[in-house]
Amino acid sequence: MRIVIALGGNALLRRGEPMTADVQRRNIRTAAEAIAPIAGDHQLVISHGNGPQVGLLALQGASYKPDEAYPLDVLGAETEGMIGYMIEQELGNLLPFEVPFATLLTMVEVDGDDPGFKNPTKFVGPIYDEGEAKRIEKEKGWVFKLDGAKWRRVVPSPAPKRIFEIRPIRWLLDHGTVVICAGGGGIPTMYAPGKDRQLMGVEAVIDKDFCSELLARELDADLFVMATDAEAVFTGWGTPEQKAIHRASPEAISAYKFPAGSMGPKVEAACQFAEATGRTAAIGALADIAAIARGEKGTLVSKEFQGVDWHS
Amino acid sequence: MRIVIALGGNALLRRGEPMTADVQRRNIRTAAEAIAPIAGDHQLVISHGNGPQVGLLALQGASYKPDEAYPLDVLGAETEGMIGYMIEQELGNLLPFEVPFATLLTMVEVDGDDPGFKNPTKFVGPIYDEGEAKRIEKEKGWVFKLDGAKWRRVVPSPAPKRIFEIRPIRWLLDHGTVVICAGGGGIPTMYAPGKDRQLMGVEAVIDKDFCSELLARELDADLFVMATDAEAVFTGWGTPEQKAIHRASPEAISAYKFPAGSMGPKVEAACQFAEATGRTAAIGALADIAAIARGEKGTLVSKEFQGVDWHS
Repeated sequence: MRIVIALGGNALLRRGEPMTADVQRRNIRTAAEAIAPIAGDHQLVISHGNGPQVGLLALQGASYKPDEAYPLDVLGAETEGMIGYMIEQELGNLLPFEVPFATLLTMVEVDGDDPGFKNPTKFVGPIYDEGEAKRIEKEKGWVFKLDGAKWRRVVPSPAPKRIFEIRPIRWLLDHGTVVICAGGGGIPTMYAPGKDRQLMGVEAVIDKDFCSELLARELDADLFVMATDAEAVFTGWGTPEQKAIHRASPEAISAYKFPAGSMGPKVEAACQFAEATGRTAAIGALADIAAIARGEKGTLVSKEFQGVDWHS
Repeated sequence: MRIVIALGGNALLRRGEPMTADVQRRNIRTAAEAIAPIAGDHQLVISHGNGPQVGLLALQGASYKPDEAYPLDVLGAETEGMIGYMIEQELGNLLPFEVPFATLLTMVEVDGDDPGFKNPTKFVGPIYDEGEAKRIEKEKGWVFKLDGAKWRRVVPSPAPKRIFEIRPIRWLLDHGTVVICAGGGGIPTMYAPGKDRQLMGVEAVIDKDFCSELLARELDADLFVMATDAEAVFTGWGTPEQKAIHRASPEAISAYKFPAGSMGPKVEAACQFAEATGRTAAIGALADIAAIARGEKGTLVSKEFQGVDWHS
């Protein structure tokens, strides 16, 4: 099978952990240990989140020369380098030397008319006092919103439309390469308005799960797995009626409501993949990846399923 | 022809320029404009320097949380992301949409017994007062040397032994992809002493020209070009006898002495390539790249040449 695995942010960094290189590497090693056992039997493509890492680079830049802050497309490219390198090295250490690896920078096109641009929602970078936020808002045109009691920059999260490097990714897979790509939802880009085919970076953040779904779809993946820290998608989470979904049709799982910030987008991406391809999308714990690939654990979404089956 | 072009640091950033994203992008656009005209007729592989960029990331990290400084392998990976992205986007904007591009993270093996480790020579990151330098030296084991009146960290510059991603790079070239790789001399790695095949990052900086030479050699490149700001290799530079070398055999050009920090390593890398492959290495101005590929400009080194020919 060809499997696209989207590594959730918490596979790289758990809440409250210091964001040192050592901590990230240790977490990535754990992720690699979960993935390595299935690499022999399947073609693997690995994508990953980058939220905390982009935040760190923004903080570092702001504390050095705040007026020379790097735009989000460039910071995203830096994190694809940093995280991709660690995944390639740690997973490479667990597989036979002969297995080829490639980590590709990935540019993703977004639409300038995407409604996301009218309503920026993703917090990035440092917190500011009101006065400072107002000053930067005027100077740079950044948009600020209250994050608790302090102000923080918010940026749009437009939908991914196209992955520019999709052909090289396909060619590398055909040669048996483990490909790491589309990190952080890809580097957000768009064609400059009014110019002929001039691609440029965009100050935005693309949702990693939606980008990974597009990747899985374009690669004709047999299975698209969103690895997170939850074992499955639950209904009635935190209530006595809490139940874990094992198998569901896109229609049946869409009848439930899930939290907008976490499971909601994952379930939506899973349904999108299942509907578009007729294949299976899965949401589950990274440690269970082998069992998920066998259909035994996690939540599986496919048009082949009827209604909802629950884990016992 | 298959051509490997190593972009010198000054193609990305000129001395004294502020290191903003805009300045880097503008310089990279100029580099792309020089390269684009030859892309139709040749297979291109592009590598690049990263000295100032690694320095910037080290400075940013040090001004945010000095005790959580990221190691040089990770910083190198970040710069491969940042610079590679800009090259891919700017060169892509000048070529037909159909031309595939791929920017690959590149890990390079160095030898733990390399003499470079006994004598660190490359300055990186911020300057320190003596007391602070001594404290960090004790805490982290970093080595410091005087850079003018202040102390600065120095790191080894070991020779590159192996490029791990060489097979994916070859496959992509065979598909007509423009490949950007081996940025900053590649990410320095070595096998952990006493462990079986556990690759790890190394606190070192690999010379970009020597790594690009290895890349060109492993790819069977027909031509290996080191693009810099000098039009050619000169003898008697700055004297009334100053002359530009047009063509030379490795033996003949090696009879001259060139500055250790600049032309020396380039001439050495050119000779190494010419000797090992029987093909041509060139050193010249990026703006002349098309004429260099035709053998008209720059300094060409090949075993086919006899002695030294001069530009008139």
